[in-house]
Amino acid sequence: MNRKLLINCDLGEGYGPWRMGDDALVMPLIDQASLACGFHAGDPLIMRSGVALALQNGVQIGAHPSYPDLQGFGRRHLSCTPDEVEALLLYQLGALDAFCRAAGSAVAYVKPHGALYNDLVRDDELLRAVLRACAAFRHGLPLMVQALADNTRERRLAEEYAVPLLFEAFADRAYLADGRLAPRRLPGALHTDVGVILEQALAIARGEAFADIDGKPLRLVADSLCVHGDNPEALAVLRRLRAALDGA
Amino acid sequence: MNRKLLINCDLGEGYGPWRMGDDALVMPLIDQASLACGFHAGDPLIMRSGVALALQNGVQIGAHPSYPDLQGFGRRHLSCTPDEVEALLLYQLGALDAFCRAAGSAVAYVKPHGALYNDLVRDDELLRAVLRACAAFRHGLPLMVQALADNTRERRLAEEYAVPLLFEAFADRAYLADGRLAPRRLPGALHTDVGVILEQALAIARGEAFADIDGKPLRLVADSLCVHGDNPEALAVLRRLRAALDGA
Amino acid sequence: MNRKLLINCDLGEGYGPWRMGDDALVMPLIDQASLACGFHAGDPLIMRSGVALALQNGVQIGAHPSYPDLQGFGRRHLSCTPDEVEALLLYQLGALDAFCRAAGSAVAYVKPHGALYNDLVRDDELLRAVLRACAAFRHGLPLMVQALADNTRERRLAEEYAVPLLFEAFADRAYLADGRLAPRRLPGALHTDVGVILEQALAIARGEAFADIDGKPLRLVADSLCVHGDNPEALAVLRRLRAALDGA
Amino acid sequence: MNRKLLINCDLGEGYGPWRMGDDALVMPLIDQASLACGFHAGDPLIMRSGVALALQNGVQIGAHPSYPDLQGFGRRHLSCTPDEVEALLLYQLGALDAFCRAAGSAVAYVKPHGALYNDLVRDDELLRAVLRACAAFRHGLPLMVQALADNTRERRLAEEYAVPLLFEAFADRAYLADGRLAPRRLPGALHTDVGVILEQALAIARGEAFADIDGKPLRLVADSLCVHGDNPEALAVLRRLRAALDGA
Repeated sequence: MNRKLLINCDLGEGYGPWRMGDDALVMPLIDQASLACGFHAGDPLIMRSGVALALQNGVQIGAHPSYPDLQGFGRRHLSCTPDEVEALLLYQLGALDAFCRAAGSAVAYVKPHGALYNDLVRDDELLRAVLRACAAFRHGLPLMVQALADNTRERRLAEEYAVPLLFEAFADRAYLADGRLAPRRLPGALHTDVGVILEQALAIARGEAFADIDGKPLRLVADSLCVHGDNPEALAVLRRLRAALDGA
Repeated sequence: MNRKLLINCDLGEGYGPWRMGDDALVMPLIDQASLACGFHAGDPLIMRSGVALALQNGVQIGAHPSYPDLQGFGRRHLSCTPDEVEALLLYQLGALDAFCRAAGSAVAYVKPHGALYNDLVRDDELLRAVLRACAAFRHGLPLMVQALADNTRERRLAEEYAVPLLFEAFADRAYLADGRLAPRRLPGALHTDVGVILEQALAIARGEAFADIDGKPLRLVADSLCVHGDNPEALAVLRRLRAALDGA
Repeated sequence: MNRKLLINCDLGEGYGPWRMGDDALVMPLIDQASLACGFHAGDPLIMRSGVALALQNGVQIGAHPSYPDLQGFGRRHLSCTPDEVEALLLYQLGALDAFCRAAGSAVAYVKPHGALYNDLVRDDELLRAVLRACAAFRHGLPLMVQALADNTRERRLAEEYAVPLLFEAFADRAYLADGRLAPRRLPGALHTDVGVILEQALAIARGEAFADIDGKPLRLVADSLCVHGDNPEALAVLRRLRAALDGA
Repeated sequence: MNRKLLINCDLGEGYGPWRMGDDALVMPLIDQASLACGFHAGDPLIMRSGVALALQNGVQIGAHPSYPDLQGFGRRHLSCTPDEVEALLLYQLGALDAFCRAAGSAVAYVKPHGALYNDLVRDDELLRAVLRACAAFRHGLPLMVQALADNTRERRLAEEYAVPLLFEAFADRAYLADGRLAPRRLPGALHTDVGVILEQALAIARGEAFADIDGKPLRLVADSLCVHGDNPEALAVLRRLRAALDGA
């Protein structure tokens, strides 16, 4: 294992009077906070608080931009043109970066949210649009994408725009053979056993193979593990993941 | 006259399929474009186009942030706390700056829009909030406020936050004795005679007094003249203002 | 006591992925549910669920319209014209009524929310606008307003538009001498002692006087008591209020 | 020809300070006005004006509901579930109907807008959702869908929900052989010659065949012709269409 597997979590996902999970409990346990930028969650006050909380905990701040869809929480595909995606990415990156800048920091990476994140796996033109936005916003700003069995496509496109990639994996989801997540409707798609979750996390951290949904070995090269902390069980799992990765 | 009186115009005021005026006709005639940032007008595509058009014409780009009120076009007062105003300013500044940055430029000044602009005249805490946002976003970023007969209050508060001020005047509006705009409902509140408009503009440019709504002399110290170009008549007046100020 | 004091609660106050309180726990305990209509909370799915839950529990459905301000949850004043208020009331009334109608029911009353509710106390033109909307939507549709020591103003205006009024009182808030709520910042403005809350509720139910914030007797004539159920303590109080009023 | 071919137009498509076309010029020339309901255009004030204008001109009012996408003007597909579509239809139907009701009228038909209209052609579950919303809102409320060479599918599904259908055709668009519109990117997809437009309109009115994009005969059974009036040329064509159909 050459580099440490980091832990990232999607935070700042409240809006107005509403909250999702308790960011203050999660923040001390993670390395990277992907903060909502106002299009699926995250109003200006929440964004500013999220930035402050991340900096207090020495956590990297990632922009978590989305299709504009507050009601659908960014989980619904919206048929945007690449130009529209590039522009809405820049808008959200800039908005979050303003709070970072005001606090003496800067957005450290970009991780598209929800339907947009998923759409990048299969649409080259959308991925190019996101890469253009990252490159235009700041030279060297990394884009976080899903770690697959084979990330040749993502590496090739990112290279065209000189955008560094960060690869993200999941410990609590079962994988298909090609490294895509098993759809939630499949039995066994979600790992609920903490032992299985820790095992998968450690395998990813060590660069070793783990069992995909069919029990076949799958190896993912990842920089960061995406975790959740929005309920007591998730938080308990996160604490054990943190301890396991720190001791890995 | 120590410094040249610039011309600014509120642009990028379309949204989605809708446009307001023809920015391409106005841009070559002005020095400063105050671009809407998405809260009262200006979606990401429009903001990007506005930035590109301004840069092509060598025009300074100002952020034109607003209360969040698309339907009311930011003209309705919304009782925000100073904290809310500071955060929504930063959000909008960052969003517009992202397009500037992607084009190799930066936001050159901040001019609050509509009801927010008006509220600053009478609410110290709101003005402080806006000043904090400017100072936090970038040291030295100027705030554009209304030129009054006496801007002591604005100068004093801006000094506390080390924010440079730009003072804005109007050539097509009649003034009250204290330098506030005469309410539109008053007879004579709007100048429609081009001669009067040019005369008032040149007086402001030369630092000379002109007649307020009661015919009494009023002198305003201003950096920039706010103009409109959203209809053929306004555009014709703007062309004559441009020529007059260039020859001033 | 001529008529029974009903219990109303503001429900359906989630949006998209977010919830506020647990409507399913509250609904069986109340008589009237004031459902958000999409402008401060309440998306179409949540509105439909709220209507279904109310009907299952034999609870009257009230429309709870608001200024358009999702981020501020309708708690910020927005300077709308009376025409704007009348139109945004009709829009929200119709939207909620569609779900009632689809379920074989109808909106039973209208209770403005948040800042709009508060603005009605002091602005005759806004109150007239709301009354016009109620009258135009359905002859006889009642408007719920705050019970004051003297509701002559509200009765007089409502009579002009032939709109029946429902008066709402609070058991967990201290009152000023004129029947307005004591501002939250005053000590003693919020009753936290269950005994005090029950006592105030029963006094209102019986048409008897209770102590205002200065200990002076205040008598309110009310049709409905506004309660909250969005946390375990509030729910416990609500259960005791329900029992007390049923036995009154 | 058994029944007269009506003319419908999408109106009320402004928002806040923005307008699209001049509804007052179009309304006297048409039979049915499909009014935006706030999700892609049409704020409460505009909806109220549109209803008043339609009633003054004796024009039927149709609801023109959309995916929630103001920036994209409802032209972008949003992957909603059938439940979401049913609920957002009811919301918009009710909102528009409130203005009709306040003016002593009622929504006369429903015509989905933009991407939602297009999605109905190929997604049975979405079409069922729309049909459920129409049936639930008012027994007998008609749904307007696209006239195709073969509308068996639409007729069969509508019958299940006892929803009457209105079929809509276009005079200024070229058709594919199956009655779908030729994509705009194809040469000849848009008719610009007034003679061709009038000819196609009259053929549809008389139930006769006209040439599809390949010159092959196509016959459409239609109740209403969709026209545009948002620029001087469109308005001139509309006047000639009106005259032609009145004389048909």
